[in-house]
Amino acid sequence: MTSVVTLLSDFGHQDTYVGVMKGVILQRCPTAQLIDLTHAIPPQDLMAARFHLLSAYAYFPKGTVHLAVVDPGVGSQRRGVAIQFEQGYLVGPDNGIFSGVLQSCSPIAAVELSNHDYWLTLEPSTTFHGRDIFAPAAAHLAAGELLSDLGPAIDVQTLASLSVPVPKRSPSYLQGTLQHSDHFGNLITNLPGEWVAGYSWQALVGDQAIPGVSTYSDVGLGQLAACIGSHKWIEVVANGGSAWERLRIRTGSPIKILLHQVKS
Amino acid sequence: MTSVVTLLSDFGHQDTYVGVMKGVILQRCPTAQLIDLTHAIPPQDLMAARFHLLSAYAYFPKGTVHLAVVDPGVGSQRRGVAIQFEQGYLVGPDNGIFSGVLQSCSPIAAVELSNHDYWLTLEPSTTFHGRDIFAPAAAHLAAGELLSDLGPAIDVQTLASLSVPVPKRSPSYLQGTLQHSDHFGNLITNLPGEWVAGYSWQALVGDQAIPGVSTYSDVGLGQLAACIGSHKWIEVVANGGSAWERLRIRTGSPIKILLHQVKS
Amino acid sequence: MTSVVTLLSDFGHQDTYVGVMKGVILQRCPTAQLIDLTHAIPPQDLMAARFHLLSAYAYFPKGTVHLAVVDPGVGSQRRGVAIQFEQGYLVGPDNGIFSGVLQSCSPIAAVELSNHDYWLTLEPSTTFHGRDIFAPAAAHLAAGELLSDLGPAIDVQTLASLSVPVPKRSPSYLQGTLQHSDHFGNLITNLPGEWVAGYSWQALVGDQAIPGVSTYSDVGLGQLAACIGSHKWIEVVANGGSAWERLRIRTGSPIKILLHQVKS
Repeated sequence: MTSVVTLLSDFGHQDTYVGVMKGVILQRCPTAQLIDLTHAIPPQDLMAARFHLLSAYAYFPKGTVHLAVVDPGVGSQRRGVAIQFEQGYLVGPDNGIFSGVLQSCSPIAAVELSNHDYWLTLEPSTTFHGRDIFAPAAAHLAAGELLSDLGPAIDVQTLASLSVPVPKRSPSYLQGTLQHSDHFGNLITNLPGEWVAGYSWQALVGDQAIPGVSTYSDVGLGQLAACIGSHKWIEVVANGGSAWERLRIRTGSPIKILLHQVKS
Repeated sequence: MTSVVTLLSDFGHQDTYVGVMKGVILQRCPTAQLIDLTHAIPPQDLMAARFHLLSAYAYFPKGTVHLAVVDPGVGSQRRGVAIQFEQGYLVGPDNGIFSGVLQSCSPIAAVELSNHDYWLTLEPSTTFHGRDIFAPAAAHLAAGELLSDLGPAIDVQTLASLSVPVPKRSPSYLQGTLQHSDHFGNLITNLPGEWVAGYSWQALVGDQAIPGVSTYSDVGLGQLAACIGSHKWIEVVANGGSAWERLRIRTGSPIKILLHQVKS
Repeated sequence: MTSVVTLLSDFGHQDTYVGVMKGVILQRCPTAQLIDLTHAIPPQDLMAARFHLLSAYAYFPKGTVHLAVVDPGVGSQRRGVAIQFEQGYLVGPDNGIFSGVLQSCSPIAAVELSNHDYWLTLEPSTTFHGRDIFAPAAAHLAAGELLSDLGPAIDVQTLASLSVPVPKRSPSYLQGTLQHSDHFGNLITNLPGEWVAGYSWQALVGDQAIPGVSTYSDVGLGQLAACIGSHKWIEVVANGGSAWERLRIRTGSPIKILLHQVKS
């Protein structure tokens, strides 16, 4: 059996922290397919971790184990958890990073990772549960073993959630926020693309009006445009350039969409 | 069977775009060996993609599938293609990024990726064909299925080509350009190393004369030298340092080599 | 059989050098599990390579092959070596990068990689033995073949060692140096955590006194603290921030620990 384990963290690529977690997994599940989602989450940025997990999980095979370690509370009393959901498993700190995925795809069961038998060591480090607790748990699940081995069941209703800005919708406009600025400088909002279906529309960022289009190439090179991105959220882009360079707005900034009824 | 799929893109490492393509591949070919060539191609830089594919392909097992997504024309009318060549397969946009490989190793057959049955979805995103069209096609080939399944055959003569500077050769000098500046600041020209065989030689960059040597250590620490790099192209290096830091020339800049007959 | 090969280098991620080494390995050992330790070693920094290999090796399965290429002497007379040790194999240049691992876990046997039959080519490049000599040797070992095939045995006593600062220990203080500053700005010393067991203690960095604590959260957000890191070395951290940003000290800088007898 080949199981997939994805890894997401704020560890960056300059140290061996990610490699070490993979070594620990391979000790317990030698045939795992280890796939990096990203390790460039800004240090301790739970919202970014939530966004990236939500964006990616649906594209992996059923049964995939998603190991995520963005863990400002490591060494404190926050729980370590493994969660079964319809698409597979989530393993990491119970601090809300999984709450986007779980709103989209409901949890089936969860356990607290308190069974020492499945830890790397009886005395885990206070700073690197990714290596000492989460990686062994992920490997255990990837190897097809039981969730219930890892610790006592916990009520999925008690899993931590992040409070995120709620996009607003009225007949004439949408009000959202900037959720993520990607590598290309595309500005990804929290507004679902389906909310502009059937309208002609434009985006307002600050005092700048940006036309809503079907594809980048509907505007000239270097021009700003708003469209439905590959994540299915509305995004603001610059054709052949970086919208972030042009607008330099921060995550959480407001973005408004004006809706115009299409005359038929 | 274990098949190799390489991935090259301009997606960077901060988002989950690369991870998502891998998830899509593993859904269709769970045992694929997924190898990153690089995801640090400057955004939409077709010439850099061409260079890196050409530099790398020959070192992979026969049958390897090279998935490359540098795709400024995504959403427009450019074709998506899969190409069989002697060493394996190339999958991506038909915009010339494969033209270096194909000049070095001829294409055998090619198809346009228009068979919806092999797309991830019937309504692919206008911005991420890497996920929706190219990754499924690459997985199909990695799983040992037929090229002809993916769409209608196209004439390999019609595949897009990039026009690249042609290096010039005369009995007393060579005239080339800077093709790539690497992580170490080594300046890789488009001049084949074999063109200096049997000569003593020096490189001219701007008004700076740089001795042609066999190895870095033939010059003092920090000194500039020209030698035949591991790519078999002539490159300008600084022993223990960065030639790019010293010369700061741009890709495409002219580099001349003076050839001196060795007296026997 | 699935063997693990780890890769560590100063090649960065912008070129295809790492991918090419993996292609060469897969030609000889198609089922290898290829794991990146890090490729962000500062160019030619042997001490950093030594540190990261030492930090990571113990977390991998027995039999793992660690391929490491930080190689300022490539093309000169330094030896290429493969070393068997209790945990697996080490392959790379004989320049001391393995000396941390081998002080921690003794070598069993070593060979010089001079048997051309196991090189990628009879005329290896003068600048990329990682591809031409080390990757094929690592693949050979990962495939379960004999160390002795790769070249003549060499006396393990003759393997190169790096001279590293030796931490000092007295009843009232410890004197060490900064070994590594990680992605989070944690400052990792060369002082073993066990040396503060049973004491209350504080760190001195320049004229700044920093409390020794059990976990980050024992100090306020943004405050400096010293604790025993996940590597088991004493490290200086900032709770929720970067100690490096606060102190900006360089690798090799002195760090002193004051020990206070705990009254019982």
